[in-house]
Amino acid sequence: MDDTVGKSISCKAAVAWEPGKPLSIETIEVAPPKAKEVRVKVLYSGVCHSDLSILNGSLRGRFPIILGHEGSGIVESVGEGVTDFQAGDHVIPLYLPQCNTCRNCKSGKTNICEEFLGKTHAFGLMSDGTPRFTCDGKPVYHFMACSAFSQYIVLPHMSVCKINNTAPLEKVCLLGCGIATGYGAALNTAKVEPGSTCAVWGLGPIGLSAVMGCKKAGASRIIGVDINPEKFELGKKFGLTEGINPKDHDKPIQEVLMGMTDGGVDYTFECIGNINAMRAAFDSCHKGWGKTIVLGIAPTAEEFSTNPISFTLGKHILGSIYGEWKGKDDVPKLIEGYNKKEILLDEFITHTMALEKINEAFDLMREGKSLRTVINLWPDTVLTVRKSEL
Amino acid sequence: MDDTVGKSISCKAAVAWEPGKPLSIETIEVAPPKAKEVRVKVLYSGVCHSDLSILNGSLRGRFPIILGHEGSGIVESVGEGVTDFQAGDHVIPLYLPQCNTCRNCKSGKTNICEEFLGKTHAFGLMSDGTPRFTCDGKPVYHFMACSAFSQYIVLPHMSVCKINNTAPLEKVCLLGCGIATGYGAALNTAKVEPGSTCAVWGLGPIGLSAVMGCKKAGASRIIGVDINPEKFELGKKFGLTEGINPKDHDKPIQEVLMGMTDGGVDYTFECIGNINAMRAAFDSCHKGWGKTIVLGIAPTAEEFSTNPISFTLGKHILGSIYGEWKGKDDVPKLIEGYNKKEILLDEFITHTMALEKINEAFDLMREGKSLRTVINLWPDTVLTVRKSEL
Repeated sequence: MDDTVGKSISCKAAVAWEPGKPLSIETIEVAPPKAKEVRVKVLYSGVCHSDLSILNGSLRGRFPIILGHEGSGIVESVGEGVTDFQAGDHVIPLYLPQCNTCRNCKSGKTNICEEFLGKTHAFGLMSDGTPRFTCDGKPVYHFMACSAFSQYIVLPHMSVCKINNTAPLEKVCLLGCGIATGYGAALNTAKVEPGSTCAVWGLGPIGLSAVMGCKKAGASRIIGVDINPEKFELGKKFGLTEGINPKDHDKPIQEVLMGMTDGGVDYTFECIGNINAMRAAFDSCHKGWGKTIVLGIAPTAEEFSTNPISFTLGKHILGSIYGEWKGKDDVPKLIEGYNKKEILLDEFITHTMALEKINEAFDLMREGKSLRTVINLWPDTVLTVRKSEL
Repeated sequence: MDDTVGKSISCKAAVAWEPGKPLSIETIEVAPPKAKEVRVKVLYSGVCHSDLSILNGSLRGRFPIILGHEGSGIVESVGEGVTDFQAGDHVIPLYLPQCNTCRNCKSGKTNICEEFLGKTHAFGLMSDGTPRFTCDGKPVYHFMACSAFSQYIVLPHMSVCKINNTAPLEKVCLLGCGIATGYGAALNTAKVEPGSTCAVWGLGPIGLSAVMGCKKAGASRIIGVDINPEKFELGKKFGLTEGINPKDHDKPIQEVLMGMTDGGVDYTFECIGNINAMRAAFDSCHKGWGKTIVLGIAPTAEEFSTNPISFTLGKHILGSIYGEWKGKDDVPKLIEGYNKKEILLDEFITHTMALEKINEAFDLMREGKSLRTVINLWPDTVLTVRKSEL
């Protein structure tokens, strides 16, 4: 790849020009990495619900934008001062950076690097206040530094995790967001205890990975709550022990669950992003110790509400982002978990398709017909790349 | 006291006949204790804000009721099957029972005994479904089994803690509720870490005892938030390092605090029972790890609300009752803390008065002129009782 170093690269990307419109496959220019930046050839990318939320406007994004934040790829070149990566390294882009120098990173209490909360990252910019993407001369913005729906991307080096060259990139891309999120929420945020009872609202990939985390933690009962009963059989693969469909009951689901569980559930997980489901999950908790973990992202304007006496009576509500994993430290451990079959990935991948078909991936998600679609950004060449490493 | 055993006792009590009316000093009949019950001569009782909340109707209670739940006294007689108490034992009534046999007591995760949540305790009844108080032949109801505004009371033995005979009953009565609540919320619920920054909304006894708990835990900054700036000087006795008055600022107090604390407070405590203060306390927390502890009891119909993205960004909200202390196990330890001067009690007692003047105690509280008033239920005889033990 040497001939591209220091030069702009033309490549394909799915650009979202404005909210509510389909993505458009464009030829874009990707500038070379500046100081402390890395340019990555993206091979695969999962399509996550947060991409859809930006696209449909329920979460704020800066348009035009290149979405995608569940990628995997290979370093093409590095900018000045980058010593921890070199061309050819296999990597996972991190939407949650890990700078290792800010107060948050050093606190040992959170994975939310201050850079994530800063003035550039959330606004689609690199740290110098500009994007690296242009299309027909116009700037196109980054999505949480990842933008994995582009064949090439530039990221701050703090937003990249180096992984073992033997990890299957077409699978481990999913550890960049969804699967890590639910799994870590059970293990790191809820800290589910062996023998406990859990309930998970919404059996999409986040919910199913939370189920997987509850199972890993030794929960004895893992109840799925979903209005699509087909998910219950599917969920068993991931550790679900039973399912409950709110539509099958006249009573509110919280009352049904309280009755099923001798006064309430130990740990509940909201994996939809619906404030009514958050309320039901919180109401279903056992007094004295029940915890609700909020994983779903509700539309920006909506609020969760509850009678505060629930706090007095010992119920907790909290949440986390990316399962409280620190990307650089933990993605390699999660890959180990996949190798040991503690973390399932293949089972989440219901569809694979080329970048050109990405709008179909969004349609499948809207219709609830997919768990994860993995976009293959180089369908004609990737096999060669992988073979060369074997 | 032998001549009263097995008989009904006539004595004075402050009866609340209906919400919103002053208490009325009445001669009542206190039936003998039934099986597993204890009859206690109450010597002292603190007047707590929750008594006022029942009286003014913002919390539900069953009238007519004898309020009071910060008592101290001496066992007069015991019912059938009570082996852990005998006449003459010095005791603290526990509004939060500790049965040691229910799932909650045995869980090791909560101090909320199932009895507290059961069908009799909250409804002013003993476990047989009847009260032990009558006035002019009409039933009068218990308040969380305590009713410490009566000279004699009957309680389930699980609602009584035996204490050392040398503990000063006129002081340690305060460990029955308020002071234990705030102190324990800092130590047991928030688990404040050394060096952290705390902020406490409302510098009444609950807030000041939370301040005292934060100090004990080693917090380096303890900021009081109150609209009465006189509280700030007072608060220093308990560990307050600075005070902030929302009325002094044009900006919302959460913005002021975020600016004062490099992005947010580590632990915030709401000790008012105001949903707007709860929101401000939660908004003031540091992203990634900030915890809000709700101690105030809001009016029954009001709800706390927040944008759930705060959970995703790592803020927690939780609460506790009675500081997560288990009454029987922990009151003796709290008395030890008082003996070691880690827990201040004397400094909270701004007024003492006879039962006949109890409505003045409520007036002082309504007007914010007292921290704690201690009611002396036997002003003419108590000194004799105490002297006999020296």
